[in-house]
Amino acid sequence: MSHDCGFLTDLLDDGQVAFTDATRESHAVDWGTRESDHATAPDAVAFPESTADVATVLAAAHEREVPVTPYAAGTSMEGNAVPSFAGISLDLTRMDTVHEVRPADLQIDVGPGVLGSAVNEAVADDGLFFPPLPSSGDLSTVGGMIANDASGMQTVKYGEVSDWLLEVEAVTATGEVFTAGSKAKKTSAGYNLADLLVGSEGTLAVVTRATLELAGRPAQIRGGRAVFPSLDAATDAVADAIQSGLDVARIELVDETATAMANAYQGLDLPDSAMLFVEFHANHGIDEEIAFCRSLFESHGVDQFDTAGDEEMDALWEAREEMAFAVSSYDPDLSPVHPGDITVPVSKLGKIIRYAKQRGADESLLVPCFGHAGDGNVHYSVLADPDDPEQSAVAETVYSDIVARAIEMGGTATGEHGVGLGKREYLEREHGAVAVQLMRQVKRAFDPSDILNPGKLFPETSKEGGRVTLDLPTED
Amino acid sequence: MSHDCGFLTDLLDDGQVAFTDATRESHAVDWGTRESDHATAPDAVAFPESTADVATVLAAAHEREVPVTPYAAGTSMEGNAVPSFAGISLDLTRMDTVHEVRPADLQIDVGPGVLGSAVNEAVADDGLFFPPLPSSGDLSTVGGMIANDASGMQTVKYGEVSDWLLEVEAVTATGEVFTAGSKAKKTSAGYNLADLLVGSEGTLAVVTRATLELAGRPAQIRGGRAVFPSLDAATDAVADAIQSGLDVARIELVDETATAMANAYQGLDLPDSAMLFVEFHANHGIDEEIAFCRSLFESHGVDQFDTAGDEEMDALWEAREEMAFAVSSYDPDLSPVHPGDITVPVSKLGKIIRYAKQRGADESLLVPCFGHAGDGNVHYSVLADPDDPEQSAVAETVYSDIVARAIEMGGTATGEHGVGLGKREYLEREHGAVAVQLMRQVKRAFDPSDILNPGKLFPETSKEGGRVTLDLPTED
Repeated sequence: MSHDCGFLTDLLDDGQVAFTDATRESHAVDWGTRESDHATAPDAVAFPESTADVATVLAAAHEREVPVTPYAAGTSMEGNAVPSFAGISLDLTRMDTVHEVRPADLQIDVGPGVLGSAVNEAVADDGLFFPPLPSSGDLSTVGGMIANDASGMQTVKYGEVSDWLLEVEAVTATGEVFTAGSKAKKTSAGYNLADLLVGSEGTLAVVTRATLELAGRPAQIRGGRAVFPSLDAATDAVADAIQSGLDVARIELVDETATAMANAYQGLDLPDSAMLFVEFHANHGIDEEIAFCRSLFESHGVDQFDTAGDEEMDALWEAREEMAFAVSSYDPDLSPVHPGDITVPVSKLGKIIRYAKQRGADESLLVPCFGHAGDGNVHYSVLADPDDPEQSAVAETVYSDIVARAIEMGGTATGEHGVGLGKREYLEREHGAVAVQLMRQVKRAFDPSDILNPGKLFPETSKEGGRVTLDLPTED
Repeated sequence: MSHDCGFLTDLLDDGQVAFTDATRESHAVDWGTRESDHATAPDAVAFPESTADVATVLAAAHEREVPVTPYAAGTSMEGNAVPSFAGISLDLTRMDTVHEVRPADLQIDVGPGVLGSAVNEAVADDGLFFPPLPSSGDLSTVGGMIANDASGMQTVKYGEVSDWLLEVEAVTATGEVFTAGSKAKKTSAGYNLADLLVGSEGTLAVVTRATLELAGRPAQIRGGRAVFPSLDAATDAVADAIQSGLDVARIELVDETATAMANAYQGLDLPDSAMLFVEFHANHGIDEEIAFCRSLFESHGVDQFDTAGDEEMDALWEAREEMAFAVSSYDPDLSPVHPGDITVPVSKLGKIIRYAKQRGADESLLVPCFGHAGDGNVHYSVLADPDDPEQSAVAETVYSDIVARAIEMGGTATGEHGVGLGKREYLEREHGAVAVQLMRQVKRAFDPSDILNPGKLFPETSKEGGRVTLDLPTED
């Protein structure tokens, strides 16, 4: 499956193309790649420094039918940015220019390689921030966030990346540059191609510049940590908060298993019970909103609810912030099946978590759950001994059963990590054959030769290989 | 261009198909159809009552290559829902069932023929509302709002329809039923087909059911009317309010020309000056927010700022609410060139309105401007004597020049009325040839025979007729 990529040296400067094993292998993994994903190293890594570089590489790759997989920080969780069929890894991290900040319009223009933290640094002096950053925002790039429709803790109040993307410049699979969306805050002029690119995981076009909308930093920020007597009490409180219109900027759940792991990892002394972590943003009236939250939590029997101002909040939030590391470090003999990310309607939050934990318990496996509870977004891990193939297989089944159950509840196989390699098998179960066929046709409309990140998203790409067969009906 | 639609009588019940002139002609107009749009009456009007009816009609129409134009309330402004090439008008107003309200998830499932006001009535007892309703929301249907990505006065705080649509059921051009989106609040599972349908004006698929997200009614609502010494002072105040993060639910501008017309139409006694109309929604702290607004307006020299509670607000807002009628009734000898709807980045709001008024003044024409100022969305009319062809032609030129100038400022040819027939010529100027070619390819991916609302959106459809030629490149 390797491709001759020597042509790149004629197109880009020295230092913009790498063929070394070390560089190729560093582009064959992301935070969530599993062996079973059958990812491959690229044949070459290209480092474009401009839109023109991207266009040149794509035009040449298209002519030669060489796969091109956009890559940046590598913080994706489902193998989204690692090649299935070698070819070129298009590393966009050098396109990290903040082109312009327009505070009067609450806008910033950035290259795709700009980190989320760099966006916030660039606009801090104007009293602005970019609200939908994922938890990996300090390490993830804007291009990657667009490719995955990233979201995070603040999505419950502010929405996801698609809600904050105004305009993109992008390059087609054939190397043509276009813009989609508008710098106007709203437009009804033609198809919404900008939002179609959001979440398309680099399979439709390569984003080379983005205009993001910003929000004013709230005058008041306060946070809190609430300990509940049971998981049910905590999830009921979340559902009630959402239905009651509590104006909360973050509302995160950590279940009792995950709390125990946080206690062990951080040497904390929290009760091993389900907890909620909240944060409030307001210009006025934050104390009244927190009082409302307190009364709501009390009606669900909260045991303890501590609040703190912006400065002291870190200590309260510690157990939540380090959760992923606490889970992976819990027991040296156990590894999590790769991190799960499902979302259900918020009224089903308790039900899906109870199912996940019971399904684990049935097999004597630990399933810590945590996540962006206000959106119904649950992150979970099924822990198993990687040296025990039988237990690992059972853990994979439990993992999959939880995804399937979320879909049955009207939820989605992935709330924010995307499909990539890891969730392909669920796409049709979630959306049905007709919708997936339409997606295939959209893919072909943008990328007729299937050179852009081939092997992702679509279920018919077998894990063992083979480029996507776009099984299209005969045209009329 | 007429099509034999007799086959419909075999597919639908008596009373679900009409061939009478009266019914056909009532489906040949919307609120903004102009003679120059060359709209046609359909050959037949079909009234489906179920998703199965829609699927049956589309499958049969596709087989016969008969155009199908979805229609509902007819409140669109750019001829979006009136046929260009006769065929079938698919009237969805009978699919007006509220299927389910799920208050715990802030969700409602409705048919496409449900009115905006009916959505709000269905959820009022649960303390909820649907925020992005357009000004025509009492008369417009959910299907039409989705087709146009409607927005309105509350968009400045709550966003547009695309932000509140979770899932759709729709029927393809070939008669297959699919769902897109998710009942989960967020998903990254595959291409965002739901948001692609939003604003596609019935050219990609026919929406047969929608799951909308709802918001909790705020505990406090207050409004206000501010009179400014000049248009510049008013538009500067808007830009400053947005940049300062004023938490405003509505902020509407009426310029001095429009105020004079409101005074005449309603027998009001307001100063003939630029005005802003504001509304605030909050659970706590509304008085503080209004005080902040007042200090901000005072820094821009506001002459008068009256505020009122929810009950008394109607009187204050009267001049804004009746604006469109005030303009069209102002002078019996003058008619507005059809209502303009452009949006610019909010810092350019004053600049585009000054341009519009100056461009009118150059030709001795009145150009009243008003609209959703916080989004940079301007509605304008160029008034001319319809019996004076020369003046009417000049007015059309002024109208077009304003659209062109908005695009040059980084804005859009249409903020919320869509492209329909009236804005086709601007699509390529706004988005460029490559993006429009991608839109054409998306159209073909969904509707290879171009039966769904043909003649809309794409510039190459001449106003004199001819189905869309999908000028596609040869595939590799």
